[in-house]
Parts: sequence; structure tokens; C-alpha cells
Amino acid sequence: MNNEEIKRIYGKIISGIKEYFAKSGCKKAAIGLSGGIDSSVCAKLVADAIGKENVYGIIMPVMGVSSQENVADAVELCKMIGMSYSVVHINRFLEGFEDLEWGQSNIAKMNSASRIRGVLLYNYANTHNALVIGTSNKTEILLGYFTKYGDGAVDIEAIGELLKTDERELARFIGVPEKIIKKVPTAELYHGQTDEGELGISYDELDKLLRLYIEKKSDEDIAGLGFDRKTVDKAFERIKANEHKRNMPPTIKIS
Amino acid sequence: MNNEEIKRIYGKIISGIKEYFAKSGCKKAAIGLSGGIDSSVCAKLVADAIGKENVYGIIMPVMGVSSQENVADAVELCKMIGMSYSVVHINRFLEGFEDLEWGQSNIAKMNSASRIRGVLLYNYANTHNALVIGTSNKTEILLGYFTKYGDGAVDIEAIGELLKTDERELARFIGVPEKIIKKVPTAELYHGQTDEGELGISYDELDKLLRLYIEKKSDEDIAGLGFDRKTVDKAFERIKANEHKRNMPPTIKIS
Repeated sequence: MNNEEIKRIYGKIISGIKEYFAKSGCKKAAIGLSGGIDSSVCAKLVADAIGKENVYGIIMPVMGVSSQENVADAVELCKMIGMSYSVVHINRFLEGFEDLEWGQSNIAKMNSASRIRGVLLYNYANTHNALVIGTSNKTEILLGYFTKYGDGAVDIEAIGELLKTDERELARFIGVPEKIIKKVPTAELYHGQTDEGELGISYDELDKLLRLYIEKKSDEDIAGLGFDRKTVDKAFERIKANEHKRNMPPTIKIS
Repeated sequence: MNNEEIKRIYGKIISGIKEYFAKSGCKKAAIGLSGGIDSSVCAKLVADAIGKENVYGIIMPVMGVSSQENVADAVELCKMIGMSYSVVHINRFLEGFEDLEWGQSNIAKMNSASRIRGVLLYNYANTHNALVIGTSNKTEILLGYFTKYGDGAVDIEAIGELLKTDERELARFIGVPEKIIKKVPTAELYHGQTDEGELGISYDELDKLLRLYIEKKSDEDIAGLGFDRKTVDKAFERIKANEHKRNMPPTIKIS
């Protein structure tokens, strides 16, 4: 994207956020911060749109899983933006899940951490009449690469129309520290997790693929990218399998 | 409704549930049980659709708020249906919210209880590859009378097309104990709460109003019901204000 295009997108997002807050009647926002690019970009955008004094950051590490560096980066970002924040270690919220009768699986355990973060954000939001800001980008939303009713439990998605690679350019434009932009993307749901390792494809490649998918290009165009068929199929299967995450729960029809 | 109509609705719901499970590839279901009519009806319907051996009930009282009678009724229902269940007292999951820096409000506290139930249901569901069954009826969904990302956090809504008053007839048809059907409806989020007290209108009256609303009847028709204008306005305002609960979080547009 050229600079004009980034500026235009920035302007659209700021006015979009402003409009939604005006419509909702809320003045305050809550946002979960991980020290990664997605939540950092969203925090800065929302602060620019509704005023830094109205944005509250909640940093929710799991001791033993989340890196101390990420927590420190998230704190530093709040200071840079000038917004208030809390650090809430969520281990004590997760202890109760350890001895459930059904013996939680690893996937259940990881997703419960994401969902507890959602409950905490809404606890703040309900207390202060705030909206919860989502931090998923378009790449993640399309792939369903988020926890249903976890990080997906939000009131608005600020960068939900931006592919990850475009988001990086916007991040530079709004002054997110280069250190955060250059981090290896991870949901930090387990130690050593990386998005690209889990997805089996780099974000650069993925976004090339998704751009053609969004533009409803033919299989031939997609083949022209030179990816092996398996990688492409895997991505498309993920999009389809996670459709339920992008829609309201269906209601059983009676007529 | 006459008996034929109830039978028809029952058949539609059963086949709708079966179809959704087949499509999803899941064989098991998790459902939160309160001892009230909504969750009891849904548990029985899902058991009839996919087999009682595939349905797991989770009873999640808050000691000091939930009545022991309701817990006992939920347990009895599971035994009657022949399904497995756990009782998980959720007080220990809620303790961590007591000393948050921002000092939770009462509303935040009540909604957090509902959301923790959702996290528990998904903990089971993620562990056993199950779908979480929603228990909201059409009256509640239209009014937004549920906790966003709490009892609203489900995979399918089994009775989401049935108004509360029709649900009662279906409940009798499928053999839900009369004791449960006749209970005063309450979300049990605080001691002494009743739905009708909080909504300021009885379900019988509300459904009369909603039927006209659904059929897009004129103001005159609605006036013909004989409700005072304030009651009608309050219900319609609630429907409008809670629109966000019936839709996916909006994404800020960039084009």
C-alpha cells in the first residue's frame, strides 16, 4: 500500500470507531493487551478515535506460559499511548478447571484461558459501561483462527477488515514500536506456539492466497501463486470448517 | 396450539437438531441445566434427537444464590432422561473477580456468573468434541434477555424459534415434569429475581405483543391488545437496544 492508501484506511477506521461509539451511547472501551501487534494496533486506533483517557487496557498473562517480555511490552505501550491499564494474572481463574469431573483436555485448557480473558474484559465493561474492542484481523477472522467466545467475544472488531500484512503497514504508520511489529506472531496459548507454525504457512503467503480468495479468483489464478495444492486446500478447508465461528449460533427452524 | 401442531413442531426440532449434528460432525452435546423449563425442555429434545447417552448436563449453581430445590430438580430431570451430568458449584470460579482493581459492579458480577457457566460448558465441549446447546427461547432472544457471551455463548439454539408460552405446551407434550413447567421463571442471577418482575410484564402478555411484532402488525393492532403505551414502548425499546446481542460484532469497514 502507498502512504495515501494507509492514511485513507486509518481515517476510515477512526471515523468508523467514532460512529459506533456514538450509536451505542458508550464512551469507554476495554481492550485486552498481549504485547503483540494486533492488540497494540487496536489500542492505538481506539485511543485516537475516542481519546486515550477513555481506553482501559487489561494485560492478562498466564504465569508460566506468557512471556515476561510481552507483558513488559504491553505495559510500555499503555504508557506510550497514555492509557490506564491493569495487569491481571489469570492463573488463579484457571485453577478451578484443573479438577473438573470430566478431566479437561489440553485444547479445552488453552481455550478456557482465552475465554477467561473475555469474562474479565466484560467484567470491566459491565462495570464501566464500556465496549470491548476486538483485536482480530481479517486473516484470523477468515481462517477462524481465534477462540470462539474467547478472543472472539467482543463488541466491535477494529481491524477485522485488514489482512495481517496490511495491518503491519498500518502499525508503522500509527507509530507502534518496531519491536512489537517484528515479533513472531503467537496466541501464546502454549509455550513455544507460533501462528505460522500452527497454520503451516507464513502470513505473507497466506494473505496472497486470501486476497485471491476474497476476489473470488479462479483455481488457475490461485495455482499461479505456486503454492502446493495441499497448502491451499488446508487453508480453504479451515475457512469452511470454521464458518460457525463467523456467524451467530443457528436457531432450529420450526416452519 | 392443538396437539397436531405441537407434534409437528416437535418433529421439526428433532430433525433440525439431527441435521445440525450430522453437518457438524459432532456426536455429543453439552447443556447447562438450571432446573427451569428452558434447559429442561432443551435437554429432553436433544436427548430425543441424538440419544440420551450422548448428552451431558452440567448443573452450575452459585451457593447462596441458586436454590437447592432447582439443583435437585435438575438432577432429577437428568435421571428421568437417563443422561449423565455433573454438579459444579461455581463460587470458586467467581472468587477471583472479587478483588479486581476496577471493583466489579453488581451487574458485572451477575453476568460473570453466566459467562463462567459458558466457559465451563465449552471446557467440556472442547474436551469431548461436543456442541453446546443453547436454551434461550424466542421471547428471550427477541428481547435480548440473556447475557451476551454468557448463556448466549452456544453452538445452536434448540428452542430459539419458540415463544415462551408455546414452549410450555411443548414441555407438557414431551413430559417435562409439571413442577418444572409451573415454576416462576428466573435467571437466578440474584436472590429473588424473577423474569416477569424484571421485565415488568408477564410472559403471557409479552408473547401476545411479540406475536403482533413478529407479524409486523400496525400500531393500531397492538393498541387493540389493551396494554398501556408505556409497557409496549418499553418492550420495543428493549428489542432495539439489544440488537447487538442478536448479531455478530460488527467489523469497522475500510472501503
